Amino acid sequence: MTRDRLVVIGGDAAGMSAASQARRLRGAGELEIIALERGRYTSYSACGIPYWLAGDVADPDDLIARAPEEFREKYQIDVRLGHEATELDLQRREIRVRDDAGERTLPFDQLMIATGAVPIRPPLPGIDLPGVHGVQTLDDGAAVQNSLRQDWQHAVVIGGGYIGLEMAEALTRRGLAVTIVEGADQLMSTMDSDMAERITEAARGIGITVRLGEPARAIEGTDRVRAVRTDAGTLPADLVVLGLGVRPNSGLARAAGIACGATGGIATDAGMRSTSHDGVWAAGDCVETFHRISRRPVHIALGTHANKQGRVAGTVIGGGYATFPGVVGTAITKVCEVEIARTGLSSKEVAAAGFAAVTATIESTTRAGYFPKAQSMLTKIIAERGSGRLLGAQIVGREQAAKRIDVLATALWNEMTVEEMSGMDLSYAPPFSPVWDPVLIAARKAAEKVATT
Amino acid sequence: MTRDRLVVIGGDAAGMSAASQARRLRGAGELEIIALERGRYTSYSACGIPYWLAGDVADPDDLIARAPEEFREKYQIDVRLGHEATELDLQRREIRVRDDAGERTLPFDQLMIATGAVPIRPPLPGIDLPGVHGVQTLDDGAAVQNSLRQDWQHAVVIGGGYIGLEMAEALTRRGLAVTIVEGADQLMSTMDSDMAERITEAARGIGITVRLGEPARAIEGTDRVRAVRTDAGTLPADLVVLGLGVRPNSGLARAAGIACGATGGIATDAGMRSTSHDGVWAAGDCVETFHRISRRPVHIALGTHANKQGRVAGTVIGGGYATFPGVVGTAITKVCEVEIARTGLSSKEVAAAGFAAVTATIESTTRAGYFPKAQSMLTKIIAERGSGRLLGAQIVGREQAAKRIDVLATALWNEMTVEEMSGMDLSYAPPFSPVWDPVLIAARKAAEKVATT
Repeated sequence: MTRDRLVVIGGDAAGMSAASQARRLRGAGELEIIALERGRYTSYSACGIPYWLAGDVADPDDLIARAPEEFREKYQIDVRLGHEATELDLQRREIRVRDDAGERTLPFDQLMIATGAVPIRPPLPGIDLPGVHGVQTLDDGAAVQNSLRQDWQHAVVIGGGYIGLEMAEALTRRGLAVTIVEGADQLMSTMDSDMAERITEAARGIGITVRLGEPARAIEGTDRVRAVRTDAGTLPADLVVLGLGVRPNSGLARAAGIACGATGGIATDAGMRSTSHDGVWAAGDCVETFHRISRRPVHIALGTHANKQGRVAGTVIGGGYATFPGVVGTAITKVCEVEIARTGLSSKEVAAAGFAAVTATIESTTRAGYFPKAQSMLTKIIAERGSGRLLGAQIVGREQAAKRIDVLATALWNEMTVEEMSGMDLSYAPPFSPVWDPVLIAARKAAEKVATT
Repeated sequence: MTRDRLVVIGGDAAGMSAASQARRLRGAGELEIIALERGRYTSYSACGIPYWLAGDVADPDDLIARAPEEFREKYQIDVRLGHEATELDLQRREIRVRDDAGERTLPFDQLMIATGAVPIRPPLPGIDLPGVHGVQTLDDGAAVQNSLRQDWQHAVVIGGGYIGLEMAEALTRRGLAVTIVEGADQLMSTMDSDMAERITEAARGIGITVRLGEPARAIEGTDRVRAVRTDAGTLPADLVVLGLGVRPNSGLARAAGIACGATGGIATDAGMRSTSHDGVWAAGDCVETFHRISRRPVHIALGTHANKQGRVAGTVIGGGYATFPGVVGTAITKVCEVEIARTGLSSKEVAAAGFAAVTATIESTTRAGYFPKAQSMLTKIIAERGSGRLLGAQIVGREQAAKRIDVLATALWNEMTVEEMSGMDLSYAPPFSPVWDPVLIAARKAAEKVATT
């Protein structure tokens, strides 16, 4: 019996989940596994980088779920750091690999692509100046951390999405004067504008300057970044962080002819197999996935999806059966003491998907109103006109508010109507909820609107 | 057109929800509404009483959602405090009512019964001594509060359920030496014993003496309570709190021939109509309700059900359409810094309902393991053998653990299998969850067991 060789490109969540799951199902005598990682780390929490830079997490090693040695020893996976795949030949089943020693060719039987995402770098003058950082990998984080050892005073964050806001908060807490420049007229474009207003307030509340409707036009400097220019003026900047979101890092796959979708992500079937090539899998931030509500492919870069997809791919590679069921667009974060969460479709996405909707937004509290530390929270529910089916939901509030989004994500998953949701048996006790949980009140208000619209 | 008269017996959550909802649909010209309340308060949070006694809530008025004046003025509801219904004549459609001035007869057209629950009082010698308190009404709470002004040192709580534990904590925080005597071999009989162990640890951790397998045999004292006797000895007690749970306060209805179920609760249809008498509704802690998982009637006294059922009754009384969909047995509390939640069936209840099940219990954390304030939490999932359908779940953990039960309650509501649950799109960010949410890990472990059992 010949021993197959699986090569995994990318040593983070998706790649290493796939590798270790494949190993659980097929021993080292049956399947050789080589994992190529161009950086210096494996299986780390990229989402944790802003918290490390903010000082919440002391040591970047804490962000590493499993070190290369653990994969090597416990899983017999040949992890090769500092190895970058530069070209794929699917006909010959070979990969060109570059490391410090030069380039070589590595043959494979099965290929797992987990190349992740890269920060969107707009084609601005000066974008490549030293001091302009995306924050996607632990190496990126280390670069920002090193630069913070300088006596910098001013930071500009270009783009007010999740990472942009998290980084703005982190840099503010590190003592820099931070400005966010955002081309849109709201922060956090994945939220509806009425919900986003509270986020802007909170950001300003901790001293971040927020400039909306004011896109960056150029990054200025000679040896390194000195300022960011917008239509309204020039902002001093010792450090620039890109917070414009990410795009799938699918160039390597695309160049080899592997099918990608309109989102730019690699196209896979439910078992994370490439739709165009046998013996090729892909998972994580480099793929597109099925959105269960819009019924369209989407690109959503999130560690939890990467882990699940990697596990599915590893199971299939190992000869088992598993499928990834798609997503409903759930996301959560905490910035400037405000918790923010969303699931399903936003109002804009509802319209883009061809649905008509009614919305209900309610102000409530995280605990019984009379209970200590009861905090305000705003809950918005979006339901389909006519059917009353839940299409999306958003929460902005203080401590203990946002994780409630999971109830709404579960309701979406099950295609519940807001009428049915309003009768659900959610937990109640004064330290946890008013007697009518905010989710139930919002569902009831939405159901009343559905009935009269 | 004649004006109907609705009489509501009981002025707390269910009764006043029904009254105000009926009023929203039928004006005072059409429907006269009289609400009889034997106590001194309306619409208060009974669940908040232990927190008031503990000192978390300063003023009992804070527990009152709506005062009688508000019902009178805003809703034109004739609220009569200190009025107790002593007898119903459904043939003549009359109620005997006793107040300070004596007894009278009050005719009605429609009747809403919301007489709540009463603490279970075991037939122990001395049970009626002064200083033995149930904690079910605000008047009960006031009695305990008043007695705490004495220089009491020792309290014994008989029974280690929700109220017993909450009261044990409250009294400990008020400086009393508290002992819980519990006949069963675990606290909190609604939880599985492995989960309950952590609760016992937490109670002991704040200095509560927990005596399991040691039922109270007698309450001793002459003018007032002095001690509680068990098989193991005599415990000094200046104050005794009954924490043995509650039973439906359905005697008045039963005496009038209104159908009650095996649980002792008044039997209603989906619109909260009495199953035996036209023009009679019942809601809240005095009724039994449908359990969607066991498919049996259950008696669960909980403010959130009372509010929902009262609202349904009021809608139907007002000529609208509404139904109460039943419950899945969700409950939550926080005692001694430990959060406790459950939904669906416990392992004992699973067996009693005739299901065979597999269970999976996992230890995880409330936040990413590296994140500040990440706390341990134990999650248990119970799934039907073969089908893999979720039957129940329990959580015991520290801050931010327990409200996750709502995801499981929503999954139960939708009859999800643990296999399907393990792929759900729950929110992830380091301040809120490990990259695999504890609910997903537990579901996956349960699904693996289902597949191999």
